[in-house]
Amino acid sequence: MTTVDLNADMGESYGPWTMGQDRDLLGVITSANIACGMHAGDWDVMAATMDTAVANGTGIGAHPGFPDLQGFGRRRMQIGGASLGNLVAYQLGAAQAMADAAGGKVRHLKLHGALANMCAEDATLARAAYEGALRVDPEIIVMVLAATCQQEAAEALGCRWAGEIFADRAYNDDATLVDRSLPGAVIHDPDLAASRMVEMVRAGAIITESGKHIPAAVDTICLHGDGKTALLIARAVRAALQAAGVTLEMFSGRR
Amino acid sequence: MTTVDLNADMGESYGPWTMGQDRDLLGVITSANIACGMHAGDWDVMAATMDTAVANGTGIGAHPGFPDLQGFGRRRMQIGGASLGNLVAYQLGAAQAMADAAGGKVRHLKLHGALANMCAEDATLARAAYEGALRVDPEIIVMVLAATCQQEAAEALGCRWAGEIFADRAYNDDATLVDRSLPGAVIHDPDLAASRMVEMVRAGAIITESGKHIPAAVDTICLHGDGKTALLIARAVRAALQAAGVTLEMFSGRR
Amino acid sequence: MTTVDLNADMGESYGPWTMGQDRDLLGVITSANIACGMHAGDWDVMAATMDTAVANGTGIGAHPGFPDLQGFGRRRMQIGGASLGNLVAYQLGAAQAMADAAGGKVRHLKLHGALANMCAEDATLARAAYEGALRVDPEIIVMVLAATCQQEAAEALGCRWAGEIFADRAYNDDATLVDRSLPGAVIHDPDLAASRMVEMVRAGAIITESGKHIPAAVDTICLHGDGKTALLIARAVRAALQAAGVTLEMFSGRR
Amino acid sequence: MTTVDLNADMGESYGPWTMGQDRDLLGVITSANIACGMHAGDWDVMAATMDTAVANGTGIGAHPGFPDLQGFGRRRMQIGGASLGNLVAYQLGAAQAMADAAGGKVRHLKLHGALANMCAEDATLARAAYEGALRVDPEIIVMVLAATCQQEAAEALGCRWAGEIFADRAYNDDATLVDRSLPGAVIHDPDLAASRMVEMVRAGAIITESGKHIPAAVDTICLHGDGKTALLIARAVRAALQAAGVTLEMFSGRR
Repeated sequence: MTTVDLNADMGESYGPWTMGQDRDLLGVITSANIACGMHAGDWDVMAATMDTAVANGTGIGAHPGFPDLQGFGRRRMQIGGASLGNLVAYQLGAAQAMADAAGGKVRHLKLHGALANMCAEDATLARAAYEGALRVDPEIIVMVLAATCQQEAAEALGCRWAGEIFADRAYNDDATLVDRSLPGAVIHDPDLAASRMVEMVRAGAIITESGKHIPAAVDTICLHGDGKTALLIARAVRAALQAAGVTLEMFSGRR
Repeated sequence: MTTVDLNADMGESYGPWTMGQDRDLLGVITSANIACGMHAGDWDVMAATMDTAVANGTGIGAHPGFPDLQGFGRRRMQIGGASLGNLVAYQLGAAQAMADAAGGKVRHLKLHGALANMCAEDATLARAAYEGALRVDPEIIVMVLAATCQQEAAEALGCRWAGEIFADRAYNDDATLVDRSLPGAVIHDPDLAASRMVEMVRAGAIITESGKHIPAAVDTICLHGDGKTALLIARAVRAALQAAGVTLEMFSGRR
Repeated sequence: MTTVDLNADMGESYGPWTMGQDRDLLGVITSANIACGMHAGDWDVMAATMDTAVANGTGIGAHPGFPDLQGFGRRRMQIGGASLGNLVAYQLGAAQAMADAAGGKVRHLKLHGALANMCAEDATLARAAYEGALRVDPEIIVMVLAATCQQEAAEALGCRWAGEIFADRAYNDDATLVDRSLPGAVIHDPDLAASRMVEMVRAGAIITESGKHIPAAVDTICLHGDGKTALLIARAVRAALQAAGVTLEMFSGRR
Repeated sequence: MTTVDLNADMGESYGPWTMGQDRDLLGVITSANIACGMHAGDWDVMAATMDTAVANGTGIGAHPGFPDLQGFGRRRMQIGGASLGNLVAYQLGAAQAMADAAGGKVRHLKLHGALANMCAEDATLARAAYEGALRVDPEIIVMVLAATCQQEAAEALGCRWAGEIFADRAYNDDATLVDRSLPGAVIHDPDLAASRMVEMVRAGAIITESGKHIPAAVDTICLHGDGKTALLIARAVRAALQAAGVTLEMFSGRR
């Protein structure tokens, strides 16, 4: 039986400012990556998001990012080594507490924004980030971008991990993402996104723009919740996978 | 056998700025209240402080405060209800993670600065703060200023708590602190502070300026680590208690 | 000839989060109160807001608030005296620079949120805030809530000031606002708001719920830009004033 | 007559945390680079620092940095283009206001920490930063690290600038600094630092480790105020320059 998880970022509001369509997304996804206060998601937003995730039975993940509200964690910052581990541990702890208070539990960790991008390119950095989390919870499942340095770091650490692919991004033949500036790099057509995901999940592979199949850990699909198209894509992907007989459920983690 | 705990605030450095004499204090105290990043104590400071506390066998407490670095959490802010609970839960979680990563465990909670002062005056506010912590860890020991609304809130909640008195502050006959602007309000003489503490611990009472004994939960004594006098007082109190046969150890918490 | 200014808060987005309908409001108002980065409005938002205000010929005001992004400056904080003056001066300076860079000039100052509310109740606090601004620009026009301690402080300082009334709030007979929890306190009907404003501007008075006329400095009307109703009210007020022959232009400031 | 300016960073305390020996430094330097609140130096620290600089007749400079208190602006961040200009303009404006309030005036701008390092390597970035400042004050004097991309950017902009050399760092033959990890890179001997500075000021050149003379705009010497050695070096440099008949005064700026 083929199984896959659907994940999305949530809880990215802050103070008086709202972002995303969290309630709509909860009807689509099986795992939520919840911001931890550094790039988005203050304590009140976290509490409310944890409550709805728990009520919905969604898998809860901590989604730590750089300490940069104004840049939403999307600007690269020079933080590494033990300090990066401490930064991740701090945010994971905050998320655990907010999940506990809501009657839930943090089961996975996904890096956000520029931190995620940098760790996809640099296994040493990824390792520093994941070590911070594993010192807090050795059983946490690290969600990695499949076939990147994130996966390499998780495998080297011997921790539990789950591989992630993007619903709305085209892949190069080396498993990297097609640069956003190129035509076709970002997929806006819900049907196209949906049919690609069914194919990749069935194949257990990343299928590149040229049609090449790269065997990969397709454990979870990254969906988005900002903007109308994103939600349409998310729903189309879910519907197509269900129609294809794929079971949608939280990943259990590889090692 | 008479027993008491000695506590002090620690980990109040931030980024490039250092504060306090944490290593010296660790030789004196039995419990440390560790700042959680909102008024002081970033993730790196927390990690280092947890490491030294664990290495020293010191009892670890989370020391949440208002989100106000510039004011060091000493300015009153209008945060209450569920939002205050969330703020406390967030900081407690961060502290738990940093303690876990260091091989330790957060066993108590003490409110900082203006938040502590406001909760000493307002049991509803104290309750909101403590409920945030108890939702995260129902077994955490809440350190309360003895005979204040903090204690009232802890008792009403039925949680574990420990009563605290000040080594260097004079008390009024209603168990409140003598206003700092009055002569004798703050005790600067190490010997005087030490002999008062021996008396109060033995009596199980707050002894006021007028000599009145107010029976109180004297479970822990608040010491300070900023400035030369503070450390002299801390050491004098410890030495005098030991000379008087009082056992110095972590409080176990009342209910 | 009767003249009045229409003002609204602008530039309250922050980083990735947007707030308000600034472009729509610019077609209605004659003066903009622009957030200065402490409760909202980062440097990029400020730059963009200054650009549009300058392009539109709108009067530019600095809108300083408490340093509290998560609370949007709406929570009371215990900051006063010279420190409050410094806080206001800092934000005013930032606004001046951003206005200069856009080819404009800050001509007025309006306090935000909890800081404004506290200064409406406490002339000493208002004075501390205004003094901070006047040390930077002695000719700045302080926008005050008419008939409050803000006005009292401005008059005592002998600085230039302009009096403000609310388009959408009912007044008590002592010129204070009717408590929001009471029926009729907040006016949601654009026509009602508009006719009241025409009446008050013509009368040069605050007209209370009971119909009492309190002579007041009706130099500017506070409009809002959040939500559909707010914009409808803003437009209705503008249209009604124009239909009544009232000239809409920036206040010049009293002394 | 040979003339040079002596500059140092000041006002780097924050909230309850103090840093530096500002009062001692004021007796040595002719220009102060004052932190603007993003990496250090809150509004109260700025106000106090401006007061003492004005009282001392020291030249006042804005010292903007990345918005990163925990990292003290020493971590590289990915901010450039118009956003970097806005960030610099914001901080310059705040500094101008605080200087105005103290009866002084900001006459120069010096970039801090990682921002300075990045701009020394990248003229496009330096240009973006300086343009932000020049939009606010076209007559401001930009202090640049001599013979780096900072100088290149200032010259390309046609603005006023002053060249800076380090008192305590050895130079390579291409005018870059010897890497800190190499022996002799940082000069700890006050007499050596002092004699080097006299030589370089007289020669109007950077003198490298190998003895090569690179003609340079030696308008100001960067001194430090953290630690005992730094102050000894600062004083030794000042004394040696005076003994050598060099006039110490604020730079007037080249174009």
